[in-house]
Amino acid sequence: MNQIAAEIIAIGSELLIGGRSDSNSLFLAEELGKLGITLRFKSVVGDEKQDIVTAIHIAVKRARVIIMTGGLGPTVDDCTRGAVAAATGYRLARRKAALDGMTARLAQWGRTPSPAQLRQALIPSGATILNNPVGSAPGFCLTWKKALIVSLPGVPREMEAMMLQEALPLLRAASELSGQPPRTPIVRQVFHTFGLAEAEVDAKLSGLVPKGSLVDLGLLVSPLGVQVSLTTKGNQLAHEKQCDLLKKLADGVRSRLRDWIFTQGHDTMEEVVGRKLATLGLTVALAESCTGGLIGHRLTQVAGSSAYVDRGVICYSNRAKTELLGVPADLIARQGAVSWEVAAAMACGIRERAKVSVGLSVTGIAGPGGGTAIKPVGLVYVGLDGGAGPSITKKFQFHGDRNAIKQQSSQAALDLLRRWLLDQRAK
Amino acid sequence: MNQIAAEIIAIGSELLIGGRSDSNSLFLAEELGKLGITLRFKSVVGDEKQDIVTAIHIAVKRARVIIMTGGLGPTVDDCTRGAVAAATGYRLARRKAALDGMTARLAQWGRTPSPAQLRQALIPSGATILNNPVGSAPGFCLTWKKALIVSLPGVPREMEAMMLQEALPLLRAASELSGQPPRTPIVRQVFHTFGLAEAEVDAKLSGLVPKGSLVDLGLLVSPLGVQVSLTTKGNQLAHEKQCDLLKKLADGVRSRLRDWIFTQGHDTMEEVVGRKLATLGLTVALAESCTGGLIGHRLTQVAGSSAYVDRGVICYSNRAKTELLGVPADLIARQGAVSWEVAAAMACGIRERAKVSVGLSVTGIAGPGGGTAIKPVGLVYVGLDGGAGPSITKKFQFHGDRNAIKQQSSQAALDLLRRWLLDQRAK
Repeated sequence: MNQIAAEIIAIGSELLIGGRSDSNSLFLAEELGKLGITLRFKSVVGDEKQDIVTAIHIAVKRARVIIMTGGLGPTVDDCTRGAVAAATGYRLARRKAALDGMTARLAQWGRTPSPAQLRQALIPSGATILNNPVGSAPGFCLTWKKALIVSLPGVPREMEAMMLQEALPLLRAASELSGQPPRTPIVRQVFHTFGLAEAEVDAKLSGLVPKGSLVDLGLLVSPLGVQVSLTTKGNQLAHEKQCDLLKKLADGVRSRLRDWIFTQGHDTMEEVVGRKLATLGLTVALAESCTGGLIGHRLTQVAGSSAYVDRGVICYSNRAKTELLGVPADLIARQGAVSWEVAAAMACGIRERAKVSVGLSVTGIAGPGGGTAIKPVGLVYVGLDGGAGPSITKKFQFHGDRNAIKQQSSQAALDLLRRWLLDQRAK
Repeated sequence: MNQIAAEIIAIGSELLIGGRSDSNSLFLAEELGKLGITLRFKSVVGDEKQDIVTAIHIAVKRARVIIMTGGLGPTVDDCTRGAVAAATGYRLARRKAALDGMTARLAQWGRTPSPAQLRQALIPSGATILNNPVGSAPGFCLTWKKALIVSLPGVPREMEAMMLQEALPLLRAASELSGQPPRTPIVRQVFHTFGLAEAEVDAKLSGLVPKGSLVDLGLLVSPLGVQVSLTTKGNQLAHEKQCDLLKKLADGVRSRLRDWIFTQGHDTMEEVVGRKLATLGLTVALAESCTGGLIGHRLTQVAGSSAYVDRGVICYSNRAKTELLGVPADLIARQGAVSWEVAAAMACGIRERAKVSVGLSVTGIAGPGGGTAIKPVGLVYVGLDGGAGPSITKKFQFHGDRNAIKQQSSQAALDLLRRWLLDQRAK
C-alpha cells in the first residue's frame, strides 16, 4: 500500500472510561482524507505521562502523521507537553510565541495568564507553536523520526479551529515538501437510508462494487437507518479517475436505493425536512405520544426552525389526546390509543387546531412494559395530515430498547413527512 | 505500581471514524475495576487483519488482560478470529462447542446457520469458547505470553451479556489462580452536580483529597453539569481500609456540595425526578419553548413515565403560547416571549389546563440567531407552578452552541423540579 497512515492519540482518563460520543475522530479522519492521508489507528491513554510516551513510541513506528488531542490544559493532570518532550528528547522551554499568543487571547477577555496557565507556554524546544484561535492553550507541531507529531487541544471547538487554521497548512506543506509524488485525496461519499433493513440494503447493492475495487463499500446500522459509504483508497489512481469511478458507483447506489436515501453527506433528517419546509413556506405541528417530544427536539435542533415549527403537543395521557387534539374518547376506547384510527385523528387534530400546513403524529408502545400479544412493544403508528384528502398512516414493528424504539419512531415520522414534502409545491 | 493493567482493543473501521458514543468502555472499565484490574489503554483499529495483529503484539507488552471487541460477525470484513490466530500462532479450527452453541441459539429463532455464519465457528485452537447468550457470534478467550486475551462481540448488548455470563467467571478464576496475593477491587463513586461551574466545584473541594492520596478525584464537565468522581487505586490497601477512606471522602464531597448534587452513580436527572414524582403520586405537565420537546423526551426515556407525565406542549410560536397556555398576547408583546413573566405564565397555564400537580416551563434563546444586546443568545428562564403560591422562576445565562444551550436549559428546568419535589409530601 502506498498510503500515508495517520494515528490519533487521544489523551484523557475520562476518554478511557468512555460513555460519550467522540466527534474529534470523524473531523480528523475527513480533514486528513482530503490530503490523501488514511486514519489507521486510534490510541486512547489516560493522563499518565509514561503511558503517553509509550503511545508516541508505538505510533512513530506505524504512522507518518500523529495527531494528539488533549492534555494541554493548565493543571498538573495535563501532561502531553511533558510526555512529548520525554518521548522525543526535545526539552521543554518557555516559548515566547506560545506566551504571546496566549496573553493576547486572554487580553481579549480582559484577563491575564494565571500562574497555572503559564505552564501552557512550556513547549518542546524544536516545535512550531500552533495558536489557539478560540481558547488559551497553545498547541504545537514537530517532526521526529520522520513522523509529523501534531498536538491539539481535546475540546472539539478548539481542536477544530486549531486544526483548520494552524495545523493543516503545515500538514499540506509537509506533504508537498516530502519529495513523494503528490497524493490523491481520499474521497468519501455517504448516503443515509431509512426504511430498509441492513440485509435488504446489502442485497440491493450486491455486485455493485466488484472484489478488488479501489473503492470500499461500507454499511453502518443505527436506529436512524442504514448508512452506506463509498470510500476511495486514495493514491492508487489519478484523482480524476478516482472521482470518475466514485461517481459511477454513487450513481449505482442512488439508482438501486432510490428514495430510501433521505440525504447524502452530513445532513440529518431534521435538516432535510426543515430545509424543504422552509423552501416551500409550509408550517408543521406535532402530536407526539410514545416519542414524548423527541420529534420536536430534533426539528428544533436546526437553527431557524422557528420559521416552520409552530408547536407540538406531547399527549402521553389519553385525556391529553382528547383535550389537546380532539381525538374522540370513544375512538380511543374502541380502537386503543395505539391504532391506525388514533394516529390519523391525532395528525388531523393538531393540523386543524394549530392551523398549520401539515400535522404529524406518532402513537406506539415504547416498552419495556405495556405490550400485549396483539399489540406488542415496538408497535408504532405514524400519521400525517396535509388537509387535502384523508390522513396518511403507516404501521411499524420496531425492535430494541425504549430509546431505540423512540428513535426509530421519530425517524419514521420525519421520513413520512419528507416523502409527503417531495410531492408538494411552494405556496 | 502493583496494578494489573488491562487494554481494550476495539475493532471496526467505523469506530476509527467515530461520531458515536462508546458505551462499551464504561461497562468494561467498571467490571474490570471490580476485579481490581485497571483499564489503562484503549486501541482502535479498522477491519485490517495485520493492524489487529500489531495491536495484539503491542497490548501483550503492556497489559495482562486484553479485551477485544468487534470483528466476530459472519462477513469477510470480520477478521478478529484470524488476526488472533495469526498473532498468537494458534491455528483456526472449526470448534464443536462454538458450532453447537450457535446452532442452538439460531434454532430458538427457527433458523439454521447460513454458510457465512459457519465461519463464526472457526476459533483459534487453544481458546475457550464463550457462548453468546443473545446473538449468533461466539466469543473466545485464550492465554498467550502471560496475557489473558478475551474476544467479545462489538454490539453492546451482546458484549455485556457475554462478559457477565461467560468471561467474568474466567477472569475471576484466572486472577485467583495466578498465585498473586488477592487484589482489592477498584472502587469508584460518582456524584452528579448541577448549578456550579467547574471552577466553583474545584474551589469547594479544594484540599479535600490530599496529594499522594490513594484515592483519585476527577471532575468531568458537560452541559448537564459537573460530575465528580472518587476512585481508589486498588491493591495498595486492604479492601476495608480502602472503603473506609472512600466513605470519608464521599462524606466530604456530600457535605461540601450539598444539594448541588442531584444524584450519585448511574442515575440520570430524569430518573431522579421521575422516581420522586412516582413516589409522591404527583403528575407533571410541560410547557417548552426553546427546548423544543427535549424535556419531554428526557422524562419519557424512563420506563413507566406515563404514570406521572401527563402532557407537554411545545409552544414555539407566540400564538401557541397564547392558544395552548393562555399566556396573554399583550404580556408577550410587553415583556417579550423570553421573560420572567412569560415563564411564570407558561408554568401556571399548563398546570391549570392539564389539571396536574405541577407545571414546568422554559423560554429562552437557543441561538445562533435571535439574540439582542439586552437579551443575548443563551438567556433562558425556567418556571414552575405547583398551585400553592406564585410561580417560581429562575434566570440563566448559558453559553455554547444551540444544542448545548438546549441541554443546559432542560437540565435547569428538571433541577428546579427536583428541588421543588424535595419539599413536597405524598398526596
